[in-house]
Amino acid sequence: MKSILIIADGLGGRPTDQRGKTCLEAARKPNLDALTERGAVGLVDPIGPGIRPGSDTAHLSLLGYNPHELYTGRGVFECIGIGLDVRPGDICFRANFATVEESKGSLRLVDRRAGRIESGQKDLEKVLDGMRLSTRGVEVQFRASTEHRGALLLRGKDLSPYVGETDPHEIGAAIHTAEPIADDAAAKRTAAAVNELTRKSYELLKDLPLNQARVASGKLPANILLVRGAADCPHIPSITSIYGIRGAVIAGGALYRGVALACGFEVIDVPEATGGLDTNLRAKAEAALEGLTSYDLVFVHIKGADNAAHDHDGEAKTSFIERIDAEFFGTLVGRVDWDSTHLAFTGDHTTAVDYGDHTADPVPALFAGPNVRRDDVTTFDERAAARGGLLRWSGQVLPILLSYANQSPKFGS
Amino acid sequence: MKSILIIADGLGGRPTDQRGKTCLEAARKPNLDALTERGAVGLVDPIGPGIRPGSDTAHLSLLGYNPHELYTGRGVFECIGIGLDVRPGDICFRANFATVEESKGSLRLVDRRAGRIESGQKDLEKVLDGMRLSTRGVEVQFRASTEHRGALLLRGKDLSPYVGETDPHEIGAAIHTAEPIADDAAAKRTAAAVNELTRKSYELLKDLPLNQARVASGKLPANILLVRGAADCPHIPSITSIYGIRGAVIAGGALYRGVALACGFEVIDVPEATGGLDTNLRAKAEAALEGLTSYDLVFVHIKGADNAAHDHDGEAKTSFIERIDAEFFGTLVGRVDWDSTHLAFTGDHTTAVDYGDHTADPVPALFAGPNVRRDDVTTFDERAAARGGLLRWSGQVLPILLSYANQSPKFGS
Repeated sequence: MKSILIIADGLGGRPTDQRGKTCLEAARKPNLDALTERGAVGLVDPIGPGIRPGSDTAHLSLLGYNPHELYTGRGVFECIGIGLDVRPGDICFRANFATVEESKGSLRLVDRRAGRIESGQKDLEKVLDGMRLSTRGVEVQFRASTEHRGALLLRGKDLSPYVGETDPHEIGAAIHTAEPIADDAAAKRTAAAVNELTRKSYELLKDLPLNQARVASGKLPANILLVRGAADCPHIPSITSIYGIRGAVIAGGALYRGVALACGFEVIDVPEATGGLDTNLRAKAEAALEGLTSYDLVFVHIKGADNAAHDHDGEAKTSFIERIDAEFFGTLVGRVDWDSTHLAFTGDHTTAVDYGDHTADPVPALFAGPNVRRDDVTTFDERAAARGGLLRWSGQVLPILLSYANQSPKFGS
Repeated sequence: MKSILIIADGLGGRPTDQRGKTCLEAARKPNLDALTERGAVGLVDPIGPGIRPGSDTAHLSLLGYNPHELYTGRGVFECIGIGLDVRPGDICFRANFATVEESKGSLRLVDRRAGRIESGQKDLEKVLDGMRLSTRGVEVQFRASTEHRGALLLRGKDLSPYVGETDPHEIGAAIHTAEPIADDAAAKRTAAAVNELTRKSYELLKDLPLNQARVASGKLPANILLVRGAADCPHIPSITSIYGIRGAVIAGGALYRGVALACGFEVIDVPEATGGLDTNLRAKAEAALEGLTSYDLVFVHIKGADNAAHDHDGEAKTSFIERIDAEFFGTLVGRVDWDSTHLAFTGDHTTAVDYGDHTADPVPALFAGPNVRRDDVTTFDERAAARGGLLRWSGQVLPILLSYANQSPKFGS
């Protein structure tokens, strides 16, 4: 048996999205509706009723883990997703290139995103990765990600995730000194390392040729690295250890690759999967079909609908959903062996167009395949899913899918 | 965005309530039905399926807290609700005036409720509040409530909630010596304080002019204070710290004010809100409308339906529900700004007329407002709610309401 899990980020909607309809309700989606006709639907609370999910916590929960128990912070998944080898004891951070200026002995924030720097980040990475600190035995790993974003990892004995951030989040403010937020030597030692690397990042970056060129052409220099969201590595049992299967992830965004890697998936790289509205959905479907020939499980993450909703653009979200239907499901559905494959499709949360952010509204979920008890619903959207055969539950979409595939461990005997 | 949460105590029913119908099904409720038509409904298990809720635990759960984790006992909420300033480390008790007589050196129970004393309780309170104990450093605070009821608080170092009760619950039995129910010095010290104050309450009350007058007129004297339900103060994060909002509670009963105060609500006092069947529902609706002008959230507790069901009076419960509809919702609905307000209406549990007590049956819940995905249901009762768009979930009504209002914190990122 093979399984394919597709999570469309921010898929769920509200009636305010498109003049009384959700974007899913407004979208033309013949392939999804046909799949729904031969499957069963319901409403899933990604984490639980009334809990407004982040993307990281929602994914953990849908993949069958309890984020209340094991979530430490997003930095871990960013680090893993970007290719850092995160080990127990490492402290991970989300990082961003920013622009500061010296003023009366302090560094003041000019722009949190260094003018949304769009090229040359690898040069900056090279300078920062492996920087030596006077805090003994602390190793620094850094990777640049998209635009101003990056991920930073500290490795060494006696480090702690209990440190504050250096990003003041306010233009004109002095950059923060990272404070220990636990009263122990490890937190103090980690805070000292963070403060040293922050100052040192400024010394290393400020006169770099890249930044001189940026300033010469009227752009803001990326002259400091700010960090936030310190997190240590949680223990997440792998899907292989739980289900005895091999799984692969296809995702443009580093965060989603990071969550899946942390759960024991391998990565299928699809260069045209961008994590944006310009992603190549046909290429992702082709890669998924190819992946199903060698993996038991393929997990495809599709980001665009969330981006459109964060930008308050209901039309863009609706038309991206139509593209998911036409390009992704249009490519996939006719070529899956439905005698031996189960599919699950859902969102990791609702992203409301009006609000422009995640909400706690439950999300429709669809299961199809030979072991699914088909229901009467023939269209895939929020209100139709409420009339489906699966009713309403919380998280656990992957364990449900793998139970359909008869690959679920028994609890008890 | 504004939010209004209305909890009708004991709202849920059983078919045994009214010849095959629940009281909600039997009641005429045009305003609630009209609200339902433009909202969405479902069934909520106040704490969880099969868990028979108390009013205190159910309210905590509906307000978004986990009573399994933080509930210590009702005494805390009675103390807070009656106006005592409960602090960490304080030990709270439910208390009642009782009648005892001396017999062979012991005090034997004549009536647990001191003849349901109906006047003069403030005189008794004055004598008991602040009484000095020989147990060093233990401060006694006492407030009389309705009839024979009251709330007692002990403050001091090294006190413990692990003490038994003094109320023997049996006519003719000697009043109990409070026993430590943990093997530590704090429990022993607290038990000693409780036993001293019990004995001392008898000494202070027995010859009081009020009691001499009661005896002279053939009434039972309120000559002792009995205590039960020792509880220490749980740490409950305030709604302001969680959601960044200000909330107000309108409730006749001290318990409900106490729960809401413990969760960080402020109190809007409505003198005609009695917590009984004689409450002024129009005055509560007016106060709620007024409260919505200055608070983000108003929580209205309406008690009467529960009282009627505890008294096995299905007709009274049905007609009180009709009064909620006509007087409360009739006043409220036409004057709420529905473009910027979300409403939730539910019960804290089912109170079955036949059984006369709380049951674990799920309760209908209604949400209305601009962000709610409207469903097809047009009448508000238990069986109609089972066909609604929200299906079934546990607790969390306030977090769901505040997510509709875009005031919910994100878990993860």
